[in-house]
Amino acid sequence: MRYLGEPHHDGSALYVSDQRPELGARVTLWLRAPLAAGVTGVHVRAVHDGEPRYAEARVDETRQGAGGYGRTDVWWRAEITAVNPVTRYRFLLRTRAGQRWLTAAGLAAHDVTDATDFRLICHEPPPSWLADAIVYQIFPDRFDRSGPMPETPAWALPRDWDRDPVIPSGPGTSTQFYGGDLDGITRRLDHVSALGADTVYLTPFFPARSNHRYDASTFEHVDPLLGGDAALHRLSDALHARGMRLIGDITTNHCGDAHEWFTTAVSDVHAPEREMFYFDSATGDYESWWGFKSLPKFNWGSELVRERMTAVLKRWLGPLDGWRVDVANMTGRLAADDYAHEVAAMLRAEVGPDAALIAEHNHDASADLDRGGWHGTMNYGGFTRPVWAFLRGPQVDLEHFLGTPGGIPERDGPATVATFRQFAAHMSWRSYVHSWQLLDSHDSPRVRTVTGSRERHLVAAGLQATLPGTPMIFAGSEFGLTGVNGEHSRTPMPWNRPADQDLATLAGYRELFGLRRAEPALRHGGLRWLHADADCLVFARETYEETIVVCARRAPGAPIPLGEHATGLYQAADADVIPGDGPLVSMWRLRR
Amino acid sequence: MRYLGEPHHDGSALYVSDQRPELGARVTLWLRAPLAAGVTGVHVRAVHDGEPRYAEARVDETRQGAGGYGRTDVWWRAEITAVNPVTRYRFLLRTRAGQRWLTAAGLAAHDVTDATDFRLICHEPPPSWLADAIVYQIFPDRFDRSGPMPETPAWALPRDWDRDPVIPSGPGTSTQFYGGDLDGITRRLDHVSALGADTVYLTPFFPARSNHRYDASTFEHVDPLLGGDAALHRLSDALHARGMRLIGDITTNHCGDAHEWFTTAVSDVHAPEREMFYFDSATGDYESWWGFKSLPKFNWGSELVRERMTAVLKRWLGPLDGWRVDVANMTGRLAADDYAHEVAAMLRAEVGPDAALIAEHNHDASADLDRGGWHGTMNYGGFTRPVWAFLRGPQVDLEHFLGTPGGIPERDGPATVATFRQFAAHMSWRSYVHSWQLLDSHDSPRVRTVTGSRERHLVAAGLQATLPGTPMIFAGSEFGLTGVNGEHSRTPMPWNRPADQDLATLAGYRELFGLRRAEPALRHGGLRWLHADADCLVFARETYEETIVVCARRAPGAPIPLGEHATGLYQAADADVIPGDGPLVSMWRLRR
Repeated sequence: MRYLGEPHHDGSALYVSDQRPELGARVTLWLRAPLAAGVTGVHVRAVHDGEPRYAEARVDETRQGAGGYGRTDVWWRAEITAVNPVTRYRFLLRTRAGQRWLTAAGLAAHDVTDATDFRLICHEPPPSWLADAIVYQIFPDRFDRSGPMPETPAWALPRDWDRDPVIPSGPGTSTQFYGGDLDGITRRLDHVSALGADTVYLTPFFPARSNHRYDASTFEHVDPLLGGDAALHRLSDALHARGMRLIGDITTNHCGDAHEWFTTAVSDVHAPEREMFYFDSATGDYESWWGFKSLPKFNWGSELVRERMTAVLKRWLGPLDGWRVDVANMTGRLAADDYAHEVAAMLRAEVGPDAALIAEHNHDASADLDRGGWHGTMNYGGFTRPVWAFLRGPQVDLEHFLGTPGGIPERDGPATVATFRQFAAHMSWRSYVHSWQLLDSHDSPRVRTVTGSRERHLVAAGLQATLPGTPMIFAGSEFGLTGVNGEHSRTPMPWNRPADQDLATLAGYRELFGLRRAEPALRHGGLRWLHADADCLVFARETYEETIVVCARRAPGAPIPLGEHATGLYQAADADVIPGDGPLVSMWRLRR
Repeated sequence: MRYLGEPHHDGSALYVSDQRPELGARVTLWLRAPLAAGVTGVHVRAVHDGEPRYAEARVDETRQGAGGYGRTDVWWRAEITAVNPVTRYRFLLRTRAGQRWLTAAGLAAHDVTDATDFRLICHEPPPSWLADAIVYQIFPDRFDRSGPMPETPAWALPRDWDRDPVIPSGPGTSTQFYGGDLDGITRRLDHVSALGADTVYLTPFFPARSNHRYDASTFEHVDPLLGGDAALHRLSDALHARGMRLIGDITTNHCGDAHEWFTTAVSDVHAPEREMFYFDSATGDYESWWGFKSLPKFNWGSELVRERMTAVLKRWLGPLDGWRVDVANMTGRLAADDYAHEVAAMLRAEVGPDAALIAEHNHDASADLDRGGWHGTMNYGGFTRPVWAFLRGPQVDLEHFLGTPGGIPERDGPATVATFRQFAAHMSWRSYVHSWQLLDSHDSPRVRTVTGSRERHLVAAGLQATLPGTPMIFAGSEFGLTGVNGEHSRTPMPWNRPADQDLATLAGYRELFGLRRAEPALRHGGLRWLHADADCLVFARETYEETIVVCARRAPGAPIPLGEHATGLYQAADADVIPGDGPLVSMWRLRR
């Protein structure tokens, strides 16, 4: 067990007494050090108002968590004050081998910057349901149609739900129209529930001139093609009646060029709306998302943008329980302008403590988190990419890796753990567990295409169901649907195509996410990496009461001793050794 | 040569075409890859307005820098746009062994966050003289006295310059008074010049009630005990006549409790000055630096603080060429208040492009740099600490390591390089080279005490004279003076104590810093790490025309092949092998 000998701390309740500290609160921290690590002294260093201070830790005779694996752990305890909205801390260990720092990136035998310090966060916490959520993403045009095909608007290219394959690129990509609607979703909620999901995230439902609707022409009502406002209320009511939740998708970076604000701004240089966009005063040209003129970029230096967008986000709360924020990474950023953090904090304050705000970010969101704004990110960088690189199929030839040239690299277990740790270490535990862990989305190839097999796909789903963070399942992947890019992955659901339903994959999803629902340790436990070799990852999710050991193998390998007798929990017999079978995800339970 | 096989890029002119890009400028980047590294393709990833974009690099047939060490290097070239004030970029390498990222932290075989991306900076550049500066720090009470001991004020404990040892702690520490003054400095400028230094940094010269004067009672005039305003002008004029510069020391975090602003605020709760401090409205108590009530903390939320402090910083420019900013890390930070970045950017804009602003920071300043504020930091974290840990004497028993409990750890060469790289990678090249590299200061033990020997001390000075960054020499260390802590290190200069002058150390300083003055590669060259073993560091400072190879050994070791015949430059014969002698710093020159 490669990492088991290392002292450990993380932001979970097993190690941090207060998960929602107020400014100025005293917080107890624990550090767990295997006796064999030879730790003879521990200080915690916390940065107060910009300056480090040290507090000495003491051995806590009373603390013993589960999961010793046959070893003795020494638990150290220290107290610090949550002095600032973000209070960074780390541990200084005296060991027989010399001084060591412990930060969220792990042990270091040399000085490291504050970048990966642990963090206590005093910003207002996310809504409490968010940490338990399992999110199911729906692209409305492709989920289900409640009636016959509606009369299609001029921009749309009508397609047959089950007979016409999705056009993956070129003409027709954004205009192909399958006619899915919100009532189609409402009648399929049993399917969503059966997966263990309790939160539906809808990509945009505002009127637009594309099937993806990221080019909204108004934020004032739901697209009549989707059933209009009434259908949204029916969907929301049905979800809420089941204790489930609904999250919308808002484009804070831009709107569509048919949006009423933009058409007013274009047609009248003296209109108040003119300042809402970046017009060149000489040419009349305007800034847009990646140069697509159909998506004019908002200027968040404009008070009018702030007022109107804030009103939009608030207006839909009630039916909605929060927003996924499209292109959050670029919102408010252009050349010398950077209003991104200010905007995020303002929107969060305005929507109030009960609404979720999750930022889209496809590389590294850490610099935008823990600032009183977004609750979390879509964790492509810290989850999707390492999982894909570990589990990619040998024959997969996808040109781009979420925008990175050179395809999906093949990476082994240690490199995968290094990526997971590196990204998690650059954000607070709170931001980590509230970020969305996704295997795919409407913007990516399908995980089934990436992994190339049901077996590896289910290992990926196993990681998604057991690692910290909010799982976000892209509708259709539970059936093993495929897709080579984002457009191609927006497959109409195969309700009437039994041949496209891989029921073994569906069963695996139901079991895995059902287990997440059932096991507090999988939702709220700490994360301790235990082992990594070329083809295998082993980690523990731990509460005070119990440990769940998860093994994810992409190929068969050598058995790994557990150090103590453990109870088989998933695809596992009671054992003191992890068998070598693979590809397979398996789990054991250890109690105190 | 452990690192020589690695592809390399840094922010120096050898690899980046424009060192002072304007916003929107196109900038050419080069990457150098040893042929043996097997790089078959290179992309540069730059983050534009929050989103990564990729540009393909091409092999540049025309580029060949010095320093191949017998190997063939392939130079790749790409262009990117400096889209934002800080534009982060990194390289994606296709190699025979798989994909690799190259960031300022080095090569990674897995995904890494943006934290160590290279950075193009479009903020207004530092004054051009700063990158060439060698700074000499003077604590005015202890440098030289131009006349007889002045009549001492009530707070002061008069001490004899040569007979009374400095009190290191307890009563008398901050009141012991040796009577050094500014005219005493003016008459010793030949000594400063002979060291190669061209910039004098004075700790505070405002009236106060301590020998360190960080508790200023006014910012309006120079302490008469130091000779008053006229003496400052005489010193400044003398320096400027030599083409030298003068930097002051300003407490932006606090003032003294005898300061006129504070006494007004204390005596009248309705005074405008009341808002300048953090008074508790119930108790009348106030916030102060680390709880020392003699140092009341400024509230930078107050417009009056901003106006008055800006005026102070500007008022002394002319005689001064810039400021070292005391406790910059805490300035504007208290509980939920954090004005630090705003204050730094405001002060910088107000003092204009010709004045230097260097922030005190004793752990990790990187999060406060590259924000249009401070030009650099006092690089305790990224320079002083790793040098001390590498070169500490075996018998040294200093209780605290710049505030860190547990004393100074002993660290080997690879750990030392890891620290240098880790800290440098978290700031731009510009911030790195404009930061002050110091071996000691008025706030620390003397480097001679830390290293325990002249030989290791001169290896430390060798690193200071040859690594990127602005050397800051603490007056007296060139004589090999000792001191166990900051107070104790404020030794009166041994002008009249020949036994306290280690002239061999002095000669070493003159040679080393003279070499830095003479060699552009040591001031402006790139930095490439070549080798590290337990007792030895080897690196190259490189321009297009030449390479200087520096070897710093703390103990004798095995010879290291250079790969080509090199010209001895310092403590070295012409050779193709670095000899094993040590402790020793030695240098060779390689030309194209």
